[in-house]
Amino acid sequence: MQTLFFKTKPAIISTACIVGPKEGQGPLSEHFDKVNTDVEFGADSWEKSESAIVSATMNLAVQKAGLQLDDINFVLAGDLLNQSIGSTFGIRALGRPFLGIFGACSTVGEALALAAVLTDGGYAQYVLGGASSHFCSAEKTFRFPLGLGTQRTPTASWTVTGDGSFVMSASAGGPDVDHYPRVTAATVGKIIDMGIKDTNNMGAAMAPAAADVIINHFQDTGLKPSDYDAIVTGDLGIYGHDLLVQLLLEKGYDISNNSTDCGILIFDSEKQDTHAGGSGCGCAASVFGGYFYKQLKSGIIKRMLLIPTGALMNSITAQQGETIPAIAIAVAIEGAAR
Amino acid sequence: MQTLFFKTKPAIISTACIVGPKEGQGPLSEHFDKVNTDVEFGADSWEKSESAIVSATMNLAVQKAGLQLDDINFVLAGDLLNQSIGSTFGIRALGRPFLGIFGACSTVGEALALAAVLTDGGYAQYVLGGASSHFCSAEKTFRFPLGLGTQRTPTASWTVTGDGSFVMSASAGGPDVDHYPRVTAATVGKIIDMGIKDTNNMGAAMAPAAADVIINHFQDTGLKPSDYDAIVTGDLGIYGHDLLVQLLLEKGYDISNNSTDCGILIFDSEKQDTHAGGSGCGCAASVFGGYFYKQLKSGIIKRMLLIPTGALMNSITAQQGETIPAIAIAVAIEGAAR
Repeated sequence: MQTLFFKTKPAIISTACIVGPKEGQGPLSEHFDKVNTDVEFGADSWEKSESAIVSATMNLAVQKAGLQLDDINFVLAGDLLNQSIGSTFGIRALGRPFLGIFGACSTVGEALALAAVLTDGGYAQYVLGGASSHFCSAEKTFRFPLGLGTQRTPTASWTVTGDGSFVMSASAGGPDVDHYPRVTAATVGKIIDMGIKDTNNMGAAMAPAAADVIINHFQDTGLKPSDYDAIVTGDLGIYGHDLLVQLLLEKGYDISNNSTDCGILIFDSEKQDTHAGGSGCGCAASVFGGYFYKQLKSGIIKRMLLIPTGALMNSITAQQGETIPAIAIAVAIEGAAR
Repeated sequence: MQTLFFKTKPAIISTACIVGPKEGQGPLSEHFDKVNTDVEFGADSWEKSESAIVSATMNLAVQKAGLQLDDINFVLAGDLLNQSIGSTFGIRALGRPFLGIFGACSTVGEALALAAVLTDGGYAQYVLGGASSHFCSAEKTFRFPLGLGTQRTPTASWTVTGDGSFVMSASAGGPDVDHYPRVTAATVGKIIDMGIKDTNNMGAAMAPAAADVIINHFQDTGLKPSDYDAIVTGDLGIYGHDLLVQLLLEKGYDISNNSTDCGILIFDSEKQDTHAGGSGCGCAASVFGGYFYKQLKSGIIKRMLLIPTGALMNSITAQQGETIPAIAIAVAIEGAAR
């Protein structure tokens, strides 16, 4: 049993998403709270830019929940930069108790799951969570300096510049939870490594981890694919999502008609030249917090399975010839009841 | 209120500690399960060495608990390397659901706190947790290549090569918890940044974070310093610990007679030329799991407050002129009752 069940169904009472200019030119533009016109966000380094986004988004999530920072019991966040500096330097000024998490691009799933544990378990009234990434700081950390103008391979993805944050409330003591999307369960994934070495094909490395956790979710809960209106992975991209559908079909689970991927949705791959699609911690975080949260809140989506996915390699492991371990976490969310 | 209270007092039913040769020459040598004679641990890179220690130590913790890997519901771990590759590549083969955490050198405190939440909250029977560091991989990541032979400043610390892991059990359903140390509460720290920029004086950067969380712990619990037999910080070292005692005294809390620091204990600073003392995620993890766990289990220590401390900077933030944010987490542990 890999699944955490949340009997009280804690509520996601707000989300906030702030993204960069390229994301603002994509199909989901209208769903983000703020599209910044420059990618620097007023900072003088890429790392500080990412922290500026984190800080602004987390503050906005608290404000949209109608709360003050002092109301927040715990903050959960992480990102792709070395030693999670995107998050920590952004959260520093919040002055709230902080628990750092790391699941690469699956981080927002871990934030949702642990926020649900803390609120459902009676340890917190309000938890602020989120995850971020920045195209420029990620390229610097994992690939090539931007100034080189290196050509991208066809299966490469484009790291999302953005942060998606949320406030989760315990079911008792907060606002009327029936008006909000609620977290019912989360299935925690194992680290899966199928021997993929191509760091420009993350979708292939992560698809087996997503398949494994989705299968475990169905087994643990007794649910089937058709019980969900939307089964949404984090950043498998076009090729990784195809692979996931195929892997699950081989195991008897058909998600071909009710699944998609945040990395596919956030960019118009052809027009925006993003190849496989969007990726990065901020991808699932901002697409969930912007696009899907609204549909859960209005009740258009009644049951959603969000499966943020992460590749756990870095530039050193790639240089040392290591394969790419991957992880995913599946979070089940009900739409608002009204 | 920053404190998590664990009504059922989950039990730490095993610990395991594997360290490197220098730690084996220190005063705590006899308390570790295994002292490796070479620092490579049979691997061909420093990063792989650290993962080898993680894997061996976590397997040993499970074995010492009398369990199989399949009995473990969740694994919580983190380390200092970029994107936590020390942990993830070590844990990959365990095949258990994984939640990555990051609190720099405070990581084992976060592992203990979240393991207690998961077991106390009824979400898990057994949680495997731990944290690791490796002198050589840490020097490569944060400071200078070892081959340069760079001289160390007087306030510099020496990153511990080692891993400390534990298995925590819910109070019901496992072995008789009265025979084991039990976690009663954990106070989660805020990120505190007092403007220190010297990355060779981590103790000064982290002492205010430790002081803040300790004060909050006393305020939240109504306890006072004399209620604890041992108040033990993670890796403040000689100078940082002095500073902490002073900072707390100014606020009316006297810990001068019942406190120490894992970084002070693990090395004989004078003989082993470790300057301020030991540091790294593996410092608090191995000294707690080896030295203090035995005293809690035998009942010599009846109440302990363990406060692993972490500096949240990295080489990039230092180069960009940033100050050093720090964090700490205070975990209250009762000795075995028998």
